[in-house]
Amino acid sequence: MNAVATSPAAAAATTTAWDHKARRRQARLARAAEEVAARGKCVPHADAVALLHAVLEPGDRVCLEGNNQKQADFLARALTQLDPQRVHDLHMVQSVLALPEHLDLFEDGIASRLDFSFSGPQGARLAQLVSAGQIRIGAIHTYLELFARYFVDLTPQVALIAAQSADREGNLYTGPNTEDTPAIVEATAFSGGIVIAQVNQIVDRLPRIDVPAGWVDFVIEAPTPHFIEPLFTRDPAQISEIQVLMAMMAIKGIYAEYGVQRLNHGIGFDTAAIELLLPTYGESLGLKGKICRHWALNPHPALIPAIEAGWVESIHSFGSELGMEDYIRARSDVFFTGADGSLRSNRAFCQAAGHYACDLFIGSTLQMDLAGNSSTATLGRIAGFGGAPNMGADARGRRHASPAWLKAGAQAREGLTGARGTPRGQKLVVQMVETFREHMQPAFVERLDAWQLAEQAGMALPPIMIYGDDVSHVLTEEGIANLLLCRSDEEREQAIRGVAGYTPLGLGRDRRAVENLRDRGVIRRPADLGIDPRDATRNLLAARSMRDLVRASGGLYQPPKRFRNW
Amino acid sequence: MNAVATSPAAAAATTTAWDHKARRRQARLARAAEEVAARGKCVPHADAVALLHAVLEPGDRVCLEGNNQKQADFLARALTQLDPQRVHDLHMVQSVLALPEHLDLFEDGIASRLDFSFSGPQGARLAQLVSAGQIRIGAIHTYLELFARYFVDLTPQVALIAAQSADREGNLYTGPNTEDTPAIVEATAFSGGIVIAQVNQIVDRLPRIDVPAGWVDFVIEAPTPHFIEPLFTRDPAQISEIQVLMAMMAIKGIYAEYGVQRLNHGIGFDTAAIELLLPTYGESLGLKGKICRHWALNPHPALIPAIEAGWVESIHSFGSELGMEDYIRARSDVFFTGADGSLRSNRAFCQAAGHYACDLFIGSTLQMDLAGNSSTATLGRIAGFGGAPNMGADARGRRHASPAWLKAGAQAREGLTGARGTPRGQKLVVQMVETFREHMQPAFVERLDAWQLAEQAGMALPPIMIYGDDVSHVLTEEGIANLLLCRSDEEREQAIRGVAGYTPLGLGRDRRAVENLRDRGVIRRPADLGIDPRDATRNLLAARSMRDLVRASGGLYQPPKRFRNW
Repeated sequence: MNAVATSPAAAAATTTAWDHKARRRQARLARAAEEVAARGKCVPHADAVALLHAVLEPGDRVCLEGNNQKQADFLARALTQLDPQRVHDLHMVQSVLALPEHLDLFEDGIASRLDFSFSGPQGARLAQLVSAGQIRIGAIHTYLELFARYFVDLTPQVALIAAQSADREGNLYTGPNTEDTPAIVEATAFSGGIVIAQVNQIVDRLPRIDVPAGWVDFVIEAPTPHFIEPLFTRDPAQISEIQVLMAMMAIKGIYAEYGVQRLNHGIGFDTAAIELLLPTYGESLGLKGKICRHWALNPHPALIPAIEAGWVESIHSFGSELGMEDYIRARSDVFFTGADGSLRSNRAFCQAAGHYACDLFIGSTLQMDLAGNSSTATLGRIAGFGGAPNMGADARGRRHASPAWLKAGAQAREGLTGARGTPRGQKLVVQMVETFREHMQPAFVERLDAWQLAEQAGMALPPIMIYGDDVSHVLTEEGIANLLLCRSDEEREQAIRGVAGYTPLGLGRDRRAVENLRDRGVIRRPADLGIDPRDATRNLLAARSMRDLVRASGGLYQPPKRFRNW
Repeated sequence: MNAVATSPAAAAATTTAWDHKARRRQARLARAAEEVAARGKCVPHADAVALLHAVLEPGDRVCLEGNNQKQADFLARALTQLDPQRVHDLHMVQSVLALPEHLDLFEDGIASRLDFSFSGPQGARLAQLVSAGQIRIGAIHTYLELFARYFVDLTPQVALIAAQSADREGNLYTGPNTEDTPAIVEATAFSGGIVIAQVNQIVDRLPRIDVPAGWVDFVIEAPTPHFIEPLFTRDPAQISEIQVLMAMMAIKGIYAEYGVQRLNHGIGFDTAAIELLLPTYGESLGLKGKICRHWALNPHPALIPAIEAGWVESIHSFGSELGMEDYIRARSDVFFTGADGSLRSNRAFCQAAGHYACDLFIGSTLQMDLAGNSSTATLGRIAGFGGAPNMGADARGRRHASPAWLKAGAQAREGLTGARGTPRGQKLVVQMVETFREHMQPAFVERLDAWQLAEQAGMALPPIMIYGDDVSHVLTEEGIANLLLCRSDEEREQAIRGVAGYTPLGLGRDRRAVENLRDRGVIRRPADLGIDPRDATRNLLAARSMRDLVRASGGLYQPPKRFRNW
């Protein structure tokens, strides 16, 4: 147990090499050079499978760029065409499983391990493959958490990414949908990995350079442009009057109450309703300039009327939204844009913004229990988390104050002592949910399906999306429960039952306790907020159809075809 | 309160412009073109002041790159030479105030508002200027929080950054000290801002491109290379035997106990001692490969012996460390490096890694109260937080499991019910502190100076660096207090008193309660861990001098002159 006497480096020099990664990289590149007819970094798309055979090795950690919107779909298809005798047991580390090919890889024996964030449309099939033992899930992450692990213990050896265009040197233009690309490429390129980009076109001169050529090894012009999903487009025609009512409560009972200036909205009709009420209902309450000035969110078409009415100072985005290109270009005061006029998005920075620079996160869920824990994982589906855990958690590293954050923190700590009572602010985390979801399934349950799912899939913890401990408000059509003000498990339970409507858990409330909570302002009904539910009509929406949104944009917004019925 | 009837965009088109930012940018560039003889983007250093006069406007938000290490010192000096009649009331938004010039700006009436993270060497002068009313502090942030706000409500209008070199087009090479640069430049360049880089040299061809030219407006070759502080170099000769003892306790009582594989170490001799004990004491405990495999930290010279002994699989860094260049180049399996062989650091991603992908943060503090709250803010000094709050807070958005995280979470939740009792993991946050600091000031205090500082400076909350609520262990020379196991304010208080040694708070312990906590394993003394303090000698250190470190590196590590005494 003594200090090292001789020079370990000198000893190591004869026995240890410290450039395995670099040599492995050279070997991959050498194989590629043999098997593929590249011109510089440009590889013909017919050679994609050969290129992947050349660079990939069994057991590699691979990031196949699957974003919320943009998909490296050509490379995904190429990957499914590999010979599982040559390439197998890949460990996929990618944020979103959106395409069937993402799961085909596992079914076909090419990949076996998975670390990811979100699987939206593939959630049911993912659950099947997991129970069939064809996928071993490492963990389900929130986006920024997965990116963080790219720099620690899940660094990709090969990254297969998507960009808008490339020049012949290999510089990339991601265009408006930058999304995960910078995080993936940086982790891979600076750890001896290989970066392969599919692009829609190879051009002489890029509108702007988003990724320097030195970070990219191969570029393939795909035969068809990469797929982009218009995930954040919500047709105002489908917003219900219940959603209008809930949006009124959110604006008056939470946004105005706390003076929320900086926030994130998730996907959904609930939050689209809020966005569409700002220039009407919000304006009538005199809230313009007092709430909702800075946003971390994608360019939601439903925000157009609020932007036009001057409510919005800035928007930073995770990704873009199809059809919003010209509108964004014409509203560069509001959006982050490049010299070419198109959006600069960046999921890593926008998630950091959602975590640390927003006072409020509002989102929906599928199930909530009486502790306020909520999950979108239901039986037979492993849906994943996306950004919700990162933005819907109290950011305990935050130190800058804002009125909203201070007020929430003070409410949560009133009467507490010691460490828990030490003054600090708190993030507002609102779960907005109708008491019954589709097919009359109650949103409030005794026990989350997540528990059973954890048992079935052998997870260490149930896949809870937002923990009750982090939720500040539960908002249903029956009212708002302010959990910050609850001082015991029992109060919290009754506060949640008190807004759970006609669900069995709602009916099981202790009426007296609930009335008591209402007297204390822990529960607030529409009437307590001065809201007459009869006023909650669709007439309040600043746009009632896609056409209204287009009109509000002065024709700049061009919705994808499937959203046009005119 | 009706829906918008006419097209707001059409109406707005005649009254509102949406490209103020772009037009303001053009105006700045036009003024620069008039006043400065630029060749392309390259501006002679003699024109620096003229350039700043041209592009800056009163009230601008300005990021003057001040990092932990790298400083845009030439631009800082140029900024102090501006005419306060022309440029005043700047709002500085920068992570570190390291140089006297950073404060001269305020004294000279050029800047008036400040949002920052860390002020290390300038802390005392900062406090003076604040009380003299010459600086209005918006807030003290943790790094990632400040970067997050760059994309929301603190977006710089002008960024003055530092890079190693540039080519004539304006592409930048940051070299090993990338640090904050990518976050600053991205926020500024994509919001109509102006980016000015000082570089050590303008060259024909860069070793690699870190920042594309399209993101940079002006490049100035500074007359002298930018300043870099070797902040993370600790001479092993100065490590005391008490620090060796504490390091033994950390390794055996915490790292081994929880199986900590991924972690961050802060600056200091305490953690340097741990690093130097891994290949000796850690090896003797059979811990190699079981702890400390993945790191988020700068290239600490004190880690060299552990790296050479094969303990370390990967290190991702916030910035680099002077003298470590050749060593890093020769150990590319361990460090993130570019095609040029030099380090790729990135403070934003490394902070994300520290927050979300590490199981343990260990750091020191100056004061701790009986709730476990700690602060480096002492009377007359506003030191700031740096990365500690981000890494030393429970990352409540984290969802992936590891044994260390699960065990800490289970300990913290045992016996709790409802929302607080719902199973989840928890970050290990260790405060390692000798009971007395310099000048026999007790580290344990009834009331943090932070409270008085908050009153004096009109802060909304006391500048607490790490909240007691987030601390899992307090480690002193007297033992380890595991706060996760405490179930009441009283237990927590006695656990802290129980390791507070001969400080007044330590002497004020309830002996019986402390012995009870010791029986329960809440407090563990060296003897309880099977550690004989007599074994804690400097002989255990894998390197006992700078020379030993150089030798351990096989001569690759070249310490800065001030650390050489041979």
